[in-house]
Amino acid sequence: MFKRVLVANRGEIALRIIRACRELGVESIAVYSEADVDSMHVQLADEAVCIGKAAGKDSYLKPDRIIAAAEITDAEAIHPGYGFLSENADFAEICKSCNIQFIGPSPEVITKMGDKATARATAVANGVPITPGTDLMPDAETAFKAAKEIGLPVMIKATAGGGGRGMRPCFEESEFKSLFEAASNEAMACFGNGDCYLEKLVLNPHHVEFQIIADRHGNFLQLGERDCSMQRRNQKIIEECPSPLVTPELRERMAKASVELIKAIGYENAGTIEYLVDDKAENFYFMEMNTRIQVEHPVTEEVMGCELIKEQIRIAAGEPLSSHVLNSQPRGHSIECRINAEDPYNNFAPSPGKIDLWYAPGGKGVRVDTHVYSGYSVPPYYDSMIAKLIVTGATREIAISRMKRALGEFMIRGIKTTIPFQQEILNHPDFESGDYDIGWVGRFLEEKGL
Amino acid sequence: MFKRVLVANRGEIALRIIRACRELGVESIAVYSEADVDSMHVQLADEAVCIGKAAGKDSYLKPDRIIAAAEITDAEAIHPGYGFLSENADFAEICKSCNIQFIGPSPEVITKMGDKATARATAVANGVPITPGTDLMPDAETAFKAAKEIGLPVMIKATAGGGGRGMRPCFEESEFKSLFEAASNEAMACFGNGDCYLEKLVLNPHHVEFQIIADRHGNFLQLGERDCSMQRRNQKIIEECPSPLVTPELRERMAKASVELIKAIGYENAGTIEYLVDDKAENFYFMEMNTRIQVEHPVTEEVMGCELIKEQIRIAAGEPLSSHVLNSQPRGHSIECRINAEDPYNNFAPSPGKIDLWYAPGGKGVRVDTHVYSGYSVPPYYDSMIAKLIVTGATREIAISRMKRALGEFMIRGIKTTIPFQQEILNHPDFESGDYDIGWVGRFLEEKGL
Repeated sequence: MFKRVLVANRGEIALRIIRACRELGVESIAVYSEADVDSMHVQLADEAVCIGKAAGKDSYLKPDRIIAAAEITDAEAIHPGYGFLSENADFAEICKSCNIQFIGPSPEVITKMGDKATARATAVANGVPITPGTDLMPDAETAFKAAKEIGLPVMIKATAGGGGRGMRPCFEESEFKSLFEAASNEAMACFGNGDCYLEKLVLNPHHVEFQIIADRHGNFLQLGERDCSMQRRNQKIIEECPSPLVTPELRERMAKASVELIKAIGYENAGTIEYLVDDKAENFYFMEMNTRIQVEHPVTEEVMGCELIKEQIRIAAGEPLSSHVLNSQPRGHSIECRINAEDPYNNFAPSPGKIDLWYAPGGKGVRVDTHVYSGYSVPPYYDSMIAKLIVTGATREIAISRMKRALGEFMIRGIKTTIPFQQEILNHPDFESGDYDIGWVGRFLEEKGL
Repeated sequence: MFKRVLVANRGEIALRIIRACRELGVESIAVYSEADVDSMHVQLADEAVCIGKAAGKDSYLKPDRIIAAAEITDAEAIHPGYGFLSENADFAEICKSCNIQFIGPSPEVITKMGDKATARATAVANGVPITPGTDLMPDAETAFKAAKEIGLPVMIKATAGGGGRGMRPCFEESEFKSLFEAASNEAMACFGNGDCYLEKLVLNPHHVEFQIIADRHGNFLQLGERDCSMQRRNQKIIEECPSPLVTPELRERMAKASVELIKAIGYENAGTIEYLVDDKAENFYFMEMNTRIQVEHPVTEEVMGCELIKEQIRIAAGEPLSSHVLNSQPRGHSIECRINAEDPYNNFAPSPGKIDLWYAPGGKGVRVDTHVYSGYSVPPYYDSMIAKLIVTGATREIAISRMKRALGEFMIRGIKTTIPFQQEILNHPDFESGDYDIGWVGRFLEEKGL
């Protein structure tokens, strides 16, 4: 095992990694920008190094500063967390050339899965379904035949299109040709190019992702799925494990595909494969793979009774996955709310500033991961997440009632947070029934005129 | 289910019950003494009623005030927590006569198990072993025969003895007669009565207790054991689940005995049966039964994935045990530290007063149950427990490393706490190996000259 690990991140995930190191008996080194000197991740690390000015580009995104910090503190490994340099293959390469273990997959695998087209091609080559589509179609007649092959509904898309122009969804065979021509003509008029192709239209899709993890000893494991369909403009707001949509039969198929994919690419360490699932829970389509730990990993940890950050560190040190992870079985239901310093009733405008009072909920089934505290000032330079509230119960119903209870206990003064908005979602019958897709938040906000 | 429940307690357990009520959709009514007006249990309840002056005898121990509070707030049930009136059969009887549901067993069962002699007799009658012993012995010769029957070692005890006088442990047959006479003569000299009896001497005993729970629908359940051997002057300091001492074979025998006992007495609601176990984990002896929830119930909740307070309320409302409780299986290992406002290096003197700073640990596997916060003043009138820190991990080793990590994260200013002493215990090889009996803390303190 490593003696010292540098944590190349900030906020709650830096603290999360420092705690995992402490429990493993590994010393942790925090790096921080001038704006983060008061963050709890700096206070709780064994050692801390200031690496630059507030802006991410001057600190957390500077490979040379981070490598220098690792070298002066004798760190043997770097945990990149999520965001910042976590999916930067060049950084992983630099670590390697400096003889520092990057805690994540190899630079080659990061590159391969970081390019969307290559990632999709890799999925297809290994039998993992992607949204079916075509190349450019020479004419409406050929396109119609292809559309029938894919199966309606389809999206007709102009290759030059953008901003919604040159796009037509088609649900009825009888309308196909006129819609194809409309899309093509619109694109020709707007962009001077009328060439169109087709893509399967997934109706009311759900975002379902699989947690995977693999070591150097031949263990390729999936640890179940997370449902992250509750999102606003592609930003996840609430995540849960297991998904209220996925059936045991679909889960088995998705799990199998996920494991086959990571085996095929020789994946190492933790990762997440993101899929779209149609709202009948019949089909799933590969979207992308994240070659790092995710924000929402705790819901998997709670249900599976494992610890992903520790396993990441163990794997990078050459150890096999813990036996309790290899034998883990799901128990209960877990939900996470990302608490952001934003004003949900003013277009989610960031709300940085001093937190005059911070009282977080506690008790049975409540986990709070945060770097903030009473008196802490939220800096304006980074993403606005200030805490993750994770609740777990024996059933989804218990988890929901617990999340409502815990959100209600929060007392935060000095800044605005997303909590009131998350309370609205938790109290909505669609959340209770689990009947929400990735468009739900957008529609909900529109209905409320927000 | 009840609409409104009154919580006849204070501190963390009052808050624990209020949280359970909230999650069940039940309104909670707090009662509080004048000294507790700032406690978080008062702030988070749906309604709060002041019931008297600071001293327990003027408030939390006053049945009439509590019943009056329940009547003016239309509470249908009262949860007594632990301590105070929780094992007071008269109070349970008064509740009954006022048509208020007492959340606990019937007054008759409280009486029966509250009297030590009756409880022991009930245990014996139902095949549950108690420490073997004799009636008064007429002479050393008869006593010697009885001692051989019980099996050495035995404790020779003068019926009038006290303060260690008139007591002799005997390990060797050859020494029995002289020890018996010494005990008898000492008692005669000190107390004017030399009559002696014998009791089996359990060497280095461990305190192992079984959580039981039963509803009105014929479900009599045990939910595994807790080891509470880490205690100072009969006050538990650290508890864990499962016990590091108990073997699967012994666990099965103790579980069977526990269920048979509660079936025989027609027990209803949650309770705990306390046993002594010899340090070879071969024999167990009934000590007593607590007809209420215990302080250390969370370690059972964490390992079994259930919620005892909610089940208590459900049972009292006539509902059956939840199906996830009936089917619960243990997972992982949980440890609790009772954080007391005491100075462990000054004979555990109480340390009430204002908490200038309270920063509690968080993250994976950490649960904090507390009614205190930054700025809260610990009143001098009650027991000194201010928080329970419960950690859970996949293995005992992980739980121990987590407890050390979490204790180290605590930042408390303004009062002294037991945390540094608990850190010493956690770092001791005897705790790591699980090799500690109920005398361990006493010996440890003596060695340190404390």
